[in-house]
Amino acid sequence: MIIVLKPGSTQADIDYIEEKLNDKGLRVHISKGEERTIIGAIGDERILREASLAAYPAVEKVLPILKPFKLASRDFQKENSVIDVQGLTLGGKEVRVMAGPCSVEDREGLLTVARAAKAAGASFLRGGAFKPRSSPYAFQGLGEEGLVYLSEARDETGLLIVTELMDPRDAELVYRYADIIQIGARNMSNFTLLKEVGKFDKPILLKRGLSATVKELLMSAEYILDQGNRNVILCERGVRTFETETRNTLDLSAVPLVKSMSHLPIVVDPSHAVGRSDLVAPMSLAAVAAGADGLIIEIHQNPEEALCDGPQSLRLSEFADLMKRLGAVIQVMGREL
Amino acid sequence: MIIVLKPGSTQADIDYIEEKLNDKGLRVHISKGEERTIIGAIGDERILREASLAAYPAVEKVLPILKPFKLASRDFQKENSVIDVQGLTLGGKEVRVMAGPCSVEDREGLLTVARAAKAAGASFLRGGAFKPRSSPYAFQGLGEEGLVYLSEARDETGLLIVTELMDPRDAELVYRYADIIQIGARNMSNFTLLKEVGKFDKPILLKRGLSATVKELLMSAEYILDQGNRNVILCERGVRTFETETRNTLDLSAVPLVKSMSHLPIVVDPSHAVGRSDLVAPMSLAAVAAGADGLIIEIHQNPEEALCDGPQSLRLSEFADLMKRLGAVIQVMGREL
Amino acid sequence: MIIVLKPGSTQADIDYIEEKLNDKGLRVHISKGEERTIIGAIGDERILREASLAAYPAVEKVLPILKPFKLASRDFQKENSVIDVQGLTLGGKEVRVMAGPCSVEDREGLLTVARAAKAAGASFLRGGAFKPRSSPYAFQGLGEEGLVYLSEARDETGLLIVTELMDPRDAELVYRYADIIQIGARNMSNFTLLKEVGKFDKPILLKRGLSATVKELLMSAEYILDQGNRNVILCERGVRTFETETRNTLDLSAVPLVKSMSHLPIVVDPSHAVGRSDLVAPMSLAAVAAGADGLIIEIHQNPEEALCDGPQSLRLSEFADLMKRLGAVIQVMGREL
Amino acid sequence: MIIVLKPGSTQADIDYIEEKLNDKGLRVHISKGEERTIIGAIGDERILREASLAAYPAVEKVLPILKPFKLASRDFQKENSVIDVQGLTLGGKEVRVMAGPCSVEDREGLLTVARAAKAAGASFLRGGAFKPRSSPYAFQGLGEEGLVYLSEARDETGLLIVTELMDPRDAELVYRYADIIQIGARNMSNFTLLKEVGKFDKPILLKRGLSATVKELLMSAEYILDQGNRNVILCERGVRTFETETRNTLDLSAVPLVKSMSHLPIVVDPSHAVGRSDLVAPMSLAAVAAGADGLIIEIHQNPEEALCDGPQSLRLSEFADLMKRLGAVIQVMGREL
Repeated sequence: MIIVLKPGSTQADIDYIEEKLNDKGLRVHISKGEERTIIGAIGDERILREASLAAYPAVEKVLPILKPFKLASRDFQKENSVIDVQGLTLGGKEVRVMAGPCSVEDREGLLTVARAAKAAGASFLRGGAFKPRSSPYAFQGLGEEGLVYLSEARDETGLLIVTELMDPRDAELVYRYADIIQIGARNMSNFTLLKEVGKFDKPILLKRGLSATVKELLMSAEYILDQGNRNVILCERGVRTFETETRNTLDLSAVPLVKSMSHLPIVVDPSHAVGRSDLVAPMSLAAVAAGADGLIIEIHQNPEEALCDGPQSLRLSEFADLMKRLGAVIQVMGREL
Repeated sequence: MIIVLKPGSTQADIDYIEEKLNDKGLRVHISKGEERTIIGAIGDERILREASLAAYPAVEKVLPILKPFKLASRDFQKENSVIDVQGLTLGGKEVRVMAGPCSVEDREGLLTVARAAKAAGASFLRGGAFKPRSSPYAFQGLGEEGLVYLSEARDETGLLIVTELMDPRDAELVYRYADIIQIGARNMSNFTLLKEVGKFDKPILLKRGLSATVKELLMSAEYILDQGNRNVILCERGVRTFETETRNTLDLSAVPLVKSMSHLPIVVDPSHAVGRSDLVAPMSLAAVAAGADGLIIEIHQNPEEALCDGPQSLRLSEFADLMKRLGAVIQVMGREL
Repeated sequence: MIIVLKPGSTQADIDYIEEKLNDKGLRVHISKGEERTIIGAIGDERILREASLAAYPAVEKVLPILKPFKLASRDFQKENSVIDVQGLTLGGKEVRVMAGPCSVEDREGLLTVARAAKAAGASFLRGGAFKPRSSPYAFQGLGEEGLVYLSEARDETGLLIVTELMDPRDAELVYRYADIIQIGARNMSNFTLLKEVGKFDKPILLKRGLSATVKELLMSAEYILDQGNRNVILCERGVRTFETETRNTLDLSAVPLVKSMSHLPIVVDPSHAVGRSDLVAPMSLAAVAAGADGLIIEIHQNPEEALCDGPQSLRLSEFADLMKRLGAVIQVMGREL
Repeated sequence: MIIVLKPGSTQADIDYIEEKLNDKGLRVHISKGEERTIIGAIGDERILREASLAAYPAVEKVLPILKPFKLASRDFQKENSVIDVQGLTLGGKEVRVMAGPCSVEDREGLLTVARAAKAAGASFLRGGAFKPRSSPYAFQGLGEEGLVYLSEARDETGLLIVTELMDPRDAELVYRYADIIQIGARNMSNFTLLKEVGKFDKPILLKRGLSATVKELLMSAEYILDQGNRNVILCERGVRTFETETRNTLDLSAVPLVKSMSHLPIVVDPSHAVGRSDLVAPMSLAAVAAGADGLIIEIHQNPEEALCDGPQSLRLSEFADLMKRLGAVIQVMGREL
C-alpha cells in the first residue's frame, strides 16, 4: 500500500504514521520526492485495508497495490477453473448455452420451450420460479410449483436447470431442484445470500450487478469461495449507462478482463443486457468471439403473451437459427458446443 | 399507454392489436399520422404493463403514460407524509439529524459518540450492527451485541436509533431494538427484504441504490407501502458515475424531484456519497437548502481508528461546528432543527 | 408528438394548447383517459420540436414519436450506404481494417508500421497529425509534417489514409492529404466542425462521443449529411462508465443498434475503448461478430517508446496474429477482408 | 510515479526499467514486497507521463502521484483567484448571478429580460448568439445580430455580458462584445478553442463537459492558463448519468471539490443540469450553500414561446422570487450578493 502525504507534511507526521504502521506489524519504506513524500507499507494487505489510513490529516491519498480478492484471482490459481455440473463441464473447451423463458409460467409452455431448446443444442434450461420484479404488482413467479415444472422438463429433455434464488429462507428448496443456482444482478451485493450459497456443493451462477465493476463482481465471488464453494460461474448481463435505446449496455470487455484477473469461467446474458430481441443474435455471436464460456438466452414459445420480458425473448425458430450461426463462430474460435 | 407502430404497418396489424387489447378489457384509440400510426390504450394500467405489447412484430415502441407506482405518488396523496418515530416527527417542519459511526465497534466509543451527537443537536443515533461490506475479510459488524450497545446509548441520551437490516431472518431481532429500520443501498432491490419490512409497524429508511433512478426508488418504496407499512423515509446517498475523486456523486436534485413525484419524506446521507470528510459539511448545508427533511452523517471519536469508513467520518468537534452552521441554514429555509 | 396533461387540467387548458397547436398548422387529437388527458399533435415534427410545449404549466410531459434525425435514418433510406473511398468500398460485404499509430511520430517509424499493416491485410493507415490531448504538456502531433509522412506511406504501400481534423481552420490542409477525415470523439458535438466537413466530398469518420447516445451520434451525422456530404462512417469507440479497469466501456450493441436505426456503416475502435493492448484482440473479434463494417486498431513498432497511447497499441507481430484470427471470423460471418 | 511490476518479474525486468528511467534523468527507488515489486520514479512528472511505462510487458500498473495540472492547482497558488470582470469581482466574497435567455431571440425580448434580471439583482446577462444545438434543424442563434442586442442591453442596464464562443474563427468577434467568454460543455475538450481563448485578456467561463471528471475540467482550464490567460471561471452544469427524470445530474460536490483542488472560482448552472424549471430554485439555493461563487440561471419573458430550452427557463416573476430567497442563503453563508 502506498501512502502519499500532503505537501507541507512534517517529519513528525511521517514519524507518527510510521509508528502506527509499525504497531500493526508492517514494514515501512519512505521516499521523499520533490513535491510529495511517499510511504510504502509492506506486509499483510488485509490489515492495511482495515486501517483507515486516509483519515489521517497529513495523508493526501492511499493507493492499494494488491487486488482486494484472493481466492478468485489468477495469482491464486493459474489454470482456468472448469466447473462440473452433474457431469457437464463449464469453463473448458465447450461453450454452453442456457435457454428458456424469463419466468416459468405453466407446465405446457415450459415443456414446449425445453424441447425446442434441447433440439437446437442448448445444454441448460433457464427459468425463474422466484422473480425479482421492480413492481410489486408484476407477476412474482410460481414459487415451488415453477421448480417442479423445471424438474419435469429436466426429466423429459435431459437439460440441466439454472434457476434463481432470492431469499435465504428458500435456499434449501431451490437447492433441491436446481443444478446451477443463480444469484441475480440485484443480489450481487446481497452478502447474506452470498454466504448462504457459499455453503452449498452445487455451482453458483453469479450475475454482475447493474453498476458493479468487474473487481466488485470478483469480490462478491470471493464471498462464495471463502465459504468453501469453489464452483462459481460469473455472468456479464449489461451495466447501466446513459444509453436509453437498449435496456442496459452489454460490457463484453468484461469477458477478457475477467479472464485476465481470475480463473473463474464467465458466461454472457445478452437478453437482459439489450432488452430487445432483435439485438440478441448479434450480441450472442459477439460474446462467443470475445471468449465467453457460455450464453444465457431468453426464449419463449409466444413472446407476445409472456408474463415477463416478452420483448427481449427470442421465438423458438429464431433461437434455432441463432444456434446454427453460433455453432460456426464457436468452431472458428477453436471451441465446441 | 401509447403504442407506436412501425412504418408500413397494415390495417391487419392494427386490427390484431386492437382485438388483443379489447380482449383485455381496454378501450382503444387510433390516430394515423403521416409517418406513424399510434394506438392509445385506455384502461387499467396494470394490465397494460403486464402485456408484452412491445413483443408484437408490428410495434415500434410502447410509451407508458402513468407512473408505475401508486401509493408512493403525489397523485395518490397530495399532502406530505409526516412520519411519527416514537413521538418525533420526520417530514414536517423540522429537519432531523441522524449521526453516529458507520459501524458499532464497542460500548465506550459508541457512548462517546452518542453524547456528542446529542449535545450538538442530533435527534437520532445511527450505527450498523450488521454491515454490508464489499470484502468478506472486512469487519462485518457486532451483530446483536451492537444492537444492545445502541439501545444502551438510547437509554442514556434519548437519541432514537437508526440501524440496518440485511437478512430477513434477522428482521424480528432488529425490529426489537431499532426505532427506524434502515434498508441499505445494496438492498434497495432486495424485494424479499422489502416485503418483510412492509409488514412492520416501525418506520423504514430506504436508501437509493447505487444506480437506481428516483422512479425505481419509489417503486421499491411501493413494495413496502403495498404490504401495509406507510412509514417510509427515502434517502439519497449518492449514485455511481464516472467521477473518481468522490466515492459516489450526491444527486441533490433527487430531493426536489422526490417532493414533486411523491408525498414521502427524504433525507440525505452526504457521508457515503462523497466518501471524504472534508466535503461532508458543504454537502450537508446544500442538502438542507435543497429541501431535505433530514441528514445522516457519519461521525467518529477517532476516525483514524475506525473499523469502517474512517476517511468519511467527521470528528466530534467538526460535527459540532457543522451543526451550528446547519442551524442557520435550516432557519433561513423556514424550518427548525 | 404526444402531450400528456397534468391531472386536474381543465377544458380551458386543453383549448388553449389546442389553439396554440392549430396556430402552428398542426392537427390535434384529444383522448381523455381515467387519470390523464392526452393530446396528439399531428403534422410537421420539426415545428413541434421547436415549440416549447413542455413549458406550458398544464403539461406533465411531452413524448416525441418520430426520431429527431431524418437523412441518417433507415426510414429515409432502406438499403445500406456503401461508401466509396478512392475506389475501395466500406459498408458492403468487406470488413475493412484501419491500423496505425496513435500519432505520427517520425517518417521511419510510420513507414515500418505501414509496411507491417499492409502485409497483415489492412486497407487503411490511421495516424494523427493533430492530436487532441487532455494535457497541454503532452505531445500535440507533428501537424502538416505528419500529414506529409502519411502521404509518403500511402505512396509506398497503397494504404489509404485516415487522419483527424480538429480545427476548422485546418480543414483544407487535412482535406488535401486524407482519404477519410476523422472527427474525434471529443468533437462529436463540435457542430462548427461538423458543418465544415459536411461541405467536403471526401468520407468522414465520425466517432461517438464519450457519453453520447447512439441517437445523438446519428444527430451529429445528420449535421454532416444535411450539408450535402452523404459519405459518413460512424465509429463506436467506447463510452464512459464507472468501470475503471478499462479506459472506457466498448458498447458493441451500438453496432446492431445503428444498423437497425440507420443505413450508415459503422466501424469499431477497440483500442481506445479498452485502453490495454491485451484486450484488443478479443474485442476486435467480437466487433466483427457483432456486425461491424470495419476496425480501427492502434499498432506501434515499439509501444514502450510511443509518444501517445503506448499501453493500448499492439506490437506489429501481435497485429499480424490478430489479422489471421480475424480473417476466420470474417469468413464465418459471410463477409470478406 | 509508482510502477507496480507483475508477479514473477525478474531482476532483469527491474534492471531494464531502471535503466530506461535513468536514461530519462529520473531517480529510482525499488521496494520488494512479498507479492509485488514496486518501482518509485522520482523527478520531472511531465517526462514520466509521456513515457509509455505501462506498455512494458513486466509492468502491471502505473500509479501517478502528482496531479496532471499545475497552474490550476492549489499547490501552485494557495489563495483563491478573484477574477476582475470590468471592475466587478468574481470569486471573492460576493456571489454573482448571471441570468438571461438560452438564446438571444429578438431585441425587445432581450431588453425585457435584461431589465427584469437587473431589477432582481443579477450582475450579468447571459444569452447565446451562437448556439450548439444537437439538431441541425433547430434554431442556431442570431450570430452577430445577437451580440449587438446583448451589447444594447448592457448599455441600458449596466449588466455585463456572458456569451458563448463556438468557432475559433469567431473569436475576435465574440471578444469585441463579451465581458466573459463562455466555452460550452460540448467544447470543454475542444483544445483548439481553449488555446484560442487562452490568448485573450478577458475572463473565460469554462463549463464542465457532460461526462468530464473534475480533474479533466481542471486540465482544460490548464490549457487556457498555460497560454497566459489566468482569468478562468469554472462552471458545474450537470453530468450525464442513468437518471432520466432530469436532463443531467447536477454534481454539487464538484463545488467543494474544485475548491480543495484549485484556486479558481466556480459557478453553477442549475438550469441546464435539471432541465425543468420547477427544480431550478431549490438547486440554486443548494449551490450557494455548497459554496458556489455564482449562478447562471435561464430566464425568459415567455418560456412557452422560447426558441430554445423553454421548459427549463424561469419566468421573470419566478426569478424575482428566487433572488429574494437566494439573498437570505447568501447572507447566512457569510457572503454578499
